[in-house]
Amino acid sequence: MERMREGMKGIKSQLSKESEIAQAILTIDKAKKEIAVRIDKFTIGAIAKGSGMIHPNMATMLSFITTDAEISSKALRAFLKHSADLSFNMISVDRDTSTSDMAVILANGLAGKVDAKKFQQGLDFVCMYLAKEIAKDGEGSTRLIKVNVKNAVTENDARKVAKAIISSNLVKCAVFGNDPNWGRILCAIGNSGAHFTEGKIDVYFDEHKLVGDGMAKGFDKATVKEIMKNDELLVTIDLKEGKHEATAYGCDMSLEYVKLSAQYKT
Amino acid sequence: MERMREGMKGIKSQLSKESEIAQAILTIDKAKKEIAVRIDKFTIGAIAKGSGMIHPNMATMLSFITTDAEISSKALRAFLKHSADLSFNMISVDRDTSTSDMAVILANGLAGKVDAKKFQQGLDFVCMYLAKEIAKDGEGSTRLIKVNVKNAVTENDARKVAKAIISSNLVKCAVFGNDPNWGRILCAIGNSGAHFTEGKIDVYFDEHKLVGDGMAKGFDKATVKEIMKNDELLVTIDLKEGKHEATAYGCDMSLEYVKLSAQYKT
Repeated sequence: MERMREGMKGIKSQLSKESEIAQAILTIDKAKKEIAVRIDKFTIGAIAKGSGMIHPNMATMLSFITTDAEISSKALRAFLKHSADLSFNMISVDRDTSTSDMAVILANGLAGKVDAKKFQQGLDFVCMYLAKEIAKDGEGSTRLIKVNVKNAVTENDARKVAKAIISSNLVKCAVFGNDPNWGRILCAIGNSGAHFTEGKIDVYFDEHKLVGDGMAKGFDKATVKEIMKNDELLVTIDLKEGKHEATAYGCDMSLEYVKLSAQYKT
Repeated sequence: MERMREGMKGIKSQLSKESEIAQAILTIDKAKKEIAVRIDKFTIGAIAKGSGMIHPNMATMLSFITTDAEISSKALRAFLKHSADLSFNMISVDRDTSTSDMAVILANGLAGKVDAKKFQQGLDFVCMYLAKEIAKDGEGSTRLIKVNVKNAVTENDARKVAKAIISSNLVKCAVFGNDPNWGRILCAIGNSGAHFTEGKIDVYFDEHKLVGDGMAKGFDKATVKEIMKNDELLVTIDLKEGKHEATAYGCDMSLEYVKLSAQYKT
C-alpha cells in the first residue's frame, strides 16, 4: 500500500498497488482510478473508469465503491447521492452523457455502526478523488481544469455557472492554447442561465485576477505563462451576489481529443 | 448577377458578385454569405457573417436583411421570428452561444403591400440559405451536416433531437473521421430530453439505413464510403411516434477546429 499525498483531515487514504480489477475495467483510459480511505474502524474502497463521453447526469460512468460500514440501503443511497452531486455530477470531458453511467456502493456491515457525518465525509472524499482522476484522464486532455464559483445566489446557480464554463469547447481550446481567454469565460457565464450582474464578476486564473467587476484588468503575460505550465488550472469566479458555492472539474480540449474521437471505427 | 442553382418554386434567387459589405463584415469566415430573392414585385436581400461561437439562442450572429415590401414592424418581427426559428436557431457550430447574436430586417415599403404567405416563404428561404452557409463555414469544418428528425410527438421534441445530434462533439468527430457512428447518434437522442421509444428509431445516412427499429442493421462499408465523400451529409431520424418534424444544421469537428480555437490570443 502507498500513502496518497493529497489527504483530508483525519482521513488516512491509501492506494493499492496490486488491484487488478481497477486495471481490468479500463478501456481507453490512460490511468487506473482507485482509492481506499480508513476512518475510525471502517473503510471505504472504490475504483472507477471513464475518459470519453463524460458529462454525467445521474451518477457516473463506471464507479464501484465498497465499505465495511453497517448502513441501511436507504441511508447508503442518500450518502451516495450527496457525494455524487459534489463529484461525478460536476465533471465534464466532452458534454456527451453516456447511456452507461453508473455509481454503485456496496456495504457488508462487518465494521458495525459508524458515525454518519464521518461516513459522508469519507465518501465525499473518495468520490471527489475519483471524479477528478476521470476529468484529468479525459480523452486527449493535457491538464485538469477546476472551476470554483463563489458567492452565487443559490447553489444551483453556482453549479450552472461552473458547469457552463467547464463544458465550453471554446474555453477548453483556449486553455489548451495557454490563452487566458476571459471573454469566452464571461460568455459561458452568460449562457449558464444563472443569476448574475455583469459589472460585479471577478475572474481569476489561480491567484491572478483577469477580470475585476466585469472589466478586463490587463493580465501579466509572464504570470499567466507560469500558471499555464502546471498540470492543473484553477479558475475562480466570484459573482458577489450571494453565499453559495460550487466546483466543477474538466479538462482542456486538444488536437488529440479530435484524433481519438475521429479515428474510432464503428 | 449570378443565378443560384438551389431555388424554391416561384422564387428567383440571386447572388450579387460585387457586394462589398458582405465581404467587409467577415472576420474568420472563409466565405461571403449573401442572397437576394425576387418574388412578384418585391425583393428580399440579406447578408450574414458567422463561423465560431455559433449556437444561436435568440436570432443569430450577424445577419442583415432588407426588403422593399411594405410591412408593419410588428408583422415584420413575426415573419422574422418564424424564419429564424427554422434557420438561425437550428444551427450549431460549437455549442457556444455568442453574446453578439443578431438578425435585423429592414423594410422601406417602396414595393407596396405584398402577399403575406409569399413574403414568409421568401424570408424562410433567405434565412435558411444563410444559416446553412454559416454552418458549412463553421470553424475548421470539412462538411455540412443536416439532421432531419421525422415523426416526433411535438415539433419541440423534433427540434430537441435534431439539435442534440448536431451539437454532439462525439458525433461531429465521428463524421470528421468518416465513421457512421450510429451509437453516438442514439446516445445523443437519449440525452435530448425528447419523448421517444428506443425500439422504434430508424437512423439513415443519406438513403442508407444504419439502424432499424432501434437495432443496428450492419451497414455497407462501400456505400458509407461513397456517402462520406460528399461535402454534405444528411442524417435522418425517424422516431415513428407522431407527425412533427425539424431540421438542424451543423458541421463536423476537425483538428483544424481545435487549432483555430486554441491559437487565438487574448
